[in-house]
Amino acid sequence: MQGKLLYAQSGGVTAVINTTACAVIETARRHRVGVLAARNGIIGALREDLIDTSGDRPSAIAALRHTPGGAFGSCRFKLKSIDQDRAHYERLIEVFRAHDIRWFLYNGGNDSADTSLKISQVGKALGYDVTVVGVPKTVDNDLAVTDCCPGFGSVAKYTAVSVLEASLDVASMAESSTKVFVLEVMGRHAGWIAAAAGLAGTGADEAPHIILFPEIAFDEEAFLARVKATVERVGWCTVVASEGVRDASGRFLSELGTRDAFGHAQLGGVAPVLAALVKQRLGYKYHWAVPDYLQRSARHIASKTDVDHAWAVGKAAVELALAGRNAVMPAIIRTSDAPYRWKIEAVPLDKVANREKKLPKGFIRRDGHGITAAARRYLGPLVRGEAPPPYGRDGLPKYVRLKNVAVARRLPAYPIGDT
Amino acid sequence: MQGKLLYAQSGGVTAVINTTACAVIETARRHRVGVLAARNGIIGALREDLIDTSGDRPSAIAALRHTPGGAFGSCRFKLKSIDQDRAHYERLIEVFRAHDIRWFLYNGGNDSADTSLKISQVGKALGYDVTVVGVPKTVDNDLAVTDCCPGFGSVAKYTAVSVLEASLDVASMAESSTKVFVLEVMGRHAGWIAAAAGLAGTGADEAPHIILFPEIAFDEEAFLARVKATVERVGWCTVVASEGVRDASGRFLSELGTRDAFGHAQLGGVAPVLAALVKQRLGYKYHWAVPDYLQRSARHIASKTDVDHAWAVGKAAVELALAGRNAVMPAIIRTSDAPYRWKIEAVPLDKVANREKKLPKGFIRRDGHGITAAARRYLGPLVRGEAPPPYGRDGLPKYVRLKNVAVARRLPAYPIGDT
Repeated sequence: MQGKLLYAQSGGVTAVINTTACAVIETARRHRVGVLAARNGIIGALREDLIDTSGDRPSAIAALRHTPGGAFGSCRFKLKSIDQDRAHYERLIEVFRAHDIRWFLYNGGNDSADTSLKISQVGKALGYDVTVVGVPKTVDNDLAVTDCCPGFGSVAKYTAVSVLEASLDVASMAESSTKVFVLEVMGRHAGWIAAAAGLAGTGADEAPHIILFPEIAFDEEAFLARVKATVERVGWCTVVASEGVRDASGRFLSELGTRDAFGHAQLGGVAPVLAALVKQRLGYKYHWAVPDYLQRSARHIASKTDVDHAWAVGKAAVELALAGRNAVMPAIIRTSDAPYRWKIEAVPLDKVANREKKLPKGFIRRDGHGITAAARRYLGPLVRGEAPPPYGRDGLPKYVRLKNVAVARRLPAYPIGDT
Repeated sequence: MQGKLLYAQSGGVTAVINTTACAVIETARRHRVGVLAARNGIIGALREDLIDTSGDRPSAIAALRHTPGGAFGSCRFKLKSIDQDRAHYERLIEVFRAHDIRWFLYNGGNDSADTSLKISQVGKALGYDVTVVGVPKTVDNDLAVTDCCPGFGSVAKYTAVSVLEASLDVASMAESSTKVFVLEVMGRHAGWIAAAAGLAGTGADEAPHIILFPEIAFDEEAFLARVKATVERVGWCTVVASEGVRDASGRFLSELGTRDAFGHAQLGGVAPVLAALVKQRLGYKYHWAVPDYLQRSARHIASKTDVDHAWAVGKAAVELALAGRNAVMPAIIRTSDAPYRWKIEAVPLDKVANREKKLPKGFIRRDGHGITAAARRYLGPLVRGEAPPPYGRDGLPKYVRLKNVAVARRLPAYPIGDT
């Protein structure tokens, strides 16, 4: 076919965003369409900093399927409204025109869906025929319409497995050492990942004993009472805290008092705050962990369901684009919980853009510290199945780095300022 | 055979200490010797809180091979000299006598080797014939004579894989977001785990770009200069810091100024201190991670070499005990780096007790921030091979919990006070 397809990654990367990239490139190649990638997401598209993927061998592209991170670079760069950022949108169309880009696939979250929608509108207004397709991705699992977001299932699995393993450790040590373990997980605005930790156990005596959600105002006395009761009953206590936990006045717990060496409120770190509170008020020995990026890049413990989703949205995005389906996103639609069944359906981007899927109230147990059966029905299938990467003789996963060969520029430079 | 074998776990547990327990029980069963386990390590032996393993089915014992944590509980409880703690030692012999315990296997680190040695001496002095064998275990890798310690290879693999994965994430985001990532690893006194992180990459541009060892006094200016140079050259920088990093005056960096919500020096957490320093002095966006217990319990990413070692020392310990080899420890002796070859040899406990194997100076690069080829030759084989646990249909590893049936007490209670 004539013209090129441009693919760009956006926002925080995941363990499986490259699985989507792999599906995009392999599917486009089957249709004999060349794929360019924007270096560092939309920033590269604005700067005309494009990558030609045609020189990468099929085996290298295939290895993307099991390589975490974003192979072409991603970015945190939100385009504003067309009125406010008209120059940027027009620049993008100019870059598309210069490189005969007829299909644009933007792989990201809410913001990216919004950007995709606007680019398609500006293209139309400028008389340039480009088909724009959003491709879902985010560990935050907060995209509308789609049943779940590629990237979430793997961080969910990492979290549940980590809670299970670390809790076996704590249980072993509790008699004479650590009695309380606090694990901090990602999720500034919604407790999806914290909820997934709940899959590690069932019943009041199994870890995690306490989950702290951003949706539930932190109640210090209730928390401490539950920690104490758990230690007295079970011998030890595992707490999972979302980074976004807030107190009743809306302040993040992570900013509630911990100061760094320079007296500034410390960014991140609700786990050490909670651990210090437990020590101060209850006197228990504690340990805390903050896996941070480890949780969202842990391709070695990816969920097979998640990998399958990530692949399917990439393949569908190319097929939708080539079929001229403008301003849509392939969504994962669940058709059955047990057995778990799902399909891909195209949904209009304006149903996705700038919306946020909250953790349903019915997923949080009435006491606010655990998950419900409904949550388990939803979350369970997303962590199922293993899809380990191949390992080298050195004992490390065989992750690929592409050549990322730059496409020669055809336009004047376009300074976008500090990113 | 007449008499029972008593097995106890000591100190911080590992991803593979239960692999050793599995080997102990299976080997003893083959010799028709019954195995008791002390609940929560030596504390259980003192309290006569013993577990009868005979009721656990072969399939449950076999599953110990791939289950992290300490199946019978461990403890932090150090017996002092025979003069200081004579009552404890005599109590242990009394418990052995009451339950016809003829072989005692103590699975731990330096302290445990020392305790094992003393128990064998007290037994002899009291005319009770018990064969005591130490069994090596520690993620700290600091036991003398043995080439490495079961538990270390798996935390080394976890750390190298995590650095590799998180660094792919950072590299993707660096253009417009996180430029510096700090990973804190265990190792209060020696930089073995920090060194293992170095396996994630080779060459100055690959992560980890900077390793901070407890063996090298922290030089703030040199550190910041290297972070800056790395970000300017590579675009981003991964730092791995041992929790035991100290400044030139010997103070732990983790206690250098970070205060918790109550004004106390915060325990643990050199990563947030370093991240804050980078932000303050260089202005880079950062992320930091402290995996804590996750690293030493991560059986899902265990090293096969480590699992093989853990199994071999358990099997050898039983064989040595039954052969009446008193006061020895099965050590792992390396006979070749490439191809990697090793064997088990019995070494006298007095060569192991209370000694500490330091990270060799020749393993740290001259600039103090990386590892040498000699370190790679030593560390490389220890992380090789995969030994994943089986997974259930729920997507989680199938870890076992034994029945841990208590043996009826035959002696008066023996209060040992608060543990």
